Amino acid sequence: MFRYKITVEYDGAFFCGWQRQRSDSLVNTETESCLHSVQGTIEHALLKLTGTHVLVEGAGRTDAGVHALGQVAHFDLPSYIEPHRLLGGLNFYTRNHGCVVLDAEPVALDFHARFSATSREYIYKIINRRSPLALDKARAWHISRCVDVEAMRSSAQDFIGTHNFNAFRSSACQGKNPVKTLDSFEITEEQDTITCHVKARSFLHNQVRIMVGTLVWVGIGKYPQHVVDELLKCGNRVKSGPTAPPHGLYLAAVGYANYP
Amino acid sequence: MFRYKITVEYDGAFFCGWQRQRSDSLVNTETESCLHSVQGTIEHALLKLTGTHVLVEGAGRTDAGVHALGQVAHFDLPSYIEPHRLLGGLNFYTRNHGCVVLDAEPVALDFHARFSATSREYIYKIINRRSPLALDKARAWHISRCVDVEAMRSSAQDFIGTHNFNAFRSSACQGKNPVKTLDSFEITEEQDTITCHVKARSFLHNQVRIMVGTLVWVGIGKYPQHVVDELLKCGNRVKSGPTAPPHGLYLAAVGYANYP
Repeated sequence: MFRYKITVEYDGAFFCGWQRQRSDSLVNTETESCLHSVQGTIEHALLKLTGTHVLVEGAGRTDAGVHALGQVAHFDLPSYIEPHRLLGGLNFYTRNHGCVVLDAEPVALDFHARFSATSREYIYKIINRRSPLALDKARAWHISRCVDVEAMRSSAQDFIGTHNFNAFRSSACQGKNPVKTLDSFEITEEQDTITCHVKARSFLHNQVRIMVGTLVWVGIGKYPQHVVDELLKCGNRVKSGPTAPPHGLYLAAVGYANYP
Repeated sequence: MFRYKITVEYDGAFFCGWQRQRSDSLVNTETESCLHSVQGTIEHALLKLTGTHVLVEGAGRTDAGVHALGQVAHFDLPSYIEPHRLLGGLNFYTRNHGCVVLDAEPVALDFHARFSATSREYIYKIINRRSPLALDKARAWHISRCVDVEAMRSSAQDFIGTHNFNAFRSSACQGKNPVKTLDSFEITEEQDTITCHVKARSFLHNQVRIMVGTLVWVGIGKYPQHVVDELLKCGNRVKSGPTAPPHGLYLAAVGYANYP
């Protein structure tokens, strides 16, 4: 048995999310095209490539529309394939379906994409301008009201550290423990683009999107600046801001203590 | 009669180019969707908005697949419409078709988007990495061979100034005078992205794409560094490099001496 770690980039517009669906072909109502899961797409490529059914395990189960610059996954193959051949072979099948493999390497059998991960980095992209978006329509959240980025940045600092993030997770979140440690929350601004950079060992379901949605409400003046502190204390999802749309979110990188 | 200047952003993947076609619905073989021209899309929106047929004149006729961050166009309306209402009205009709209006302003009747323009800026985006592209598939030129950016940058300097660019225009180019003055050609590099920034009063058909294609051949060692100088002297299109693909090209800005 040979275990491989792959790093994957994908355009969320092509997919119903990371996780394989029973049918695995939902219909995108905007384009009327069928959507597959990223996991299913890679498993299908591995079936074509190796002739066997291979289970692919990802580091994070991104939702429909969410992009990845560096999702990580692992799988086992019954026989050894040279990493560069595996990379080329997978891309041959996935490249026209919104997903490419950036890197493939053999790893020890105890490596696990999800459980061995020691950090996850997400980027959330907002475009703050009056006009709607053409080029970044499915790549960023468009906010037409004027956003006070300094107010967002100041409130974002309250997320850093160990807190009960119950007010910042989806009501459908199945995580047993809502206590998480946020390592960093940086907000950069370039012309009309506001980019949030968030890093933690792990996140609750929709945590990044609800944190960003809440900060945007601070930025447009719907919430006072100290709201984050209060929401972390009260732990009530109903009182926090909206879940920011999936298409502004990018899983940027997954870190492993022993795999640089 | 009221003349308006608009600034337009569009995603080239949605269009058969700037210029109105006789039928104006070519089929994109990849997505099997119908493609319209940007000009036709805006004229259609103006028809819906004003009830009259309005001719829209653009600063540059971009080819199919070419994007714009700041294309400029003008048109005349029989009655005055508040610029912010015009902006909102146009975007209502165009926003779901890959095109948005960033700005609309009334201008003097002697303003001409094409003939009054004193500068045009283009950006060409290249991604230099082994793996194919997912997120930037229709947004950049993918070069998998290793590119020597310093060699490209050095050769690019030879384009600057006034030259006969006959070797760097499409054989179908109808421009009477192949002599053009290139103001600047800068190449920046960030991680695996190489970006060319080019500025001139005007360009010949496919000039930017053939200049970039030639520089990439310098960068991958197919051409020596002094090739640009020689090609400018010999003026033979057959001897210059390939026409870089349209989807890496962005019309970034159009400048007007009297309209900041």
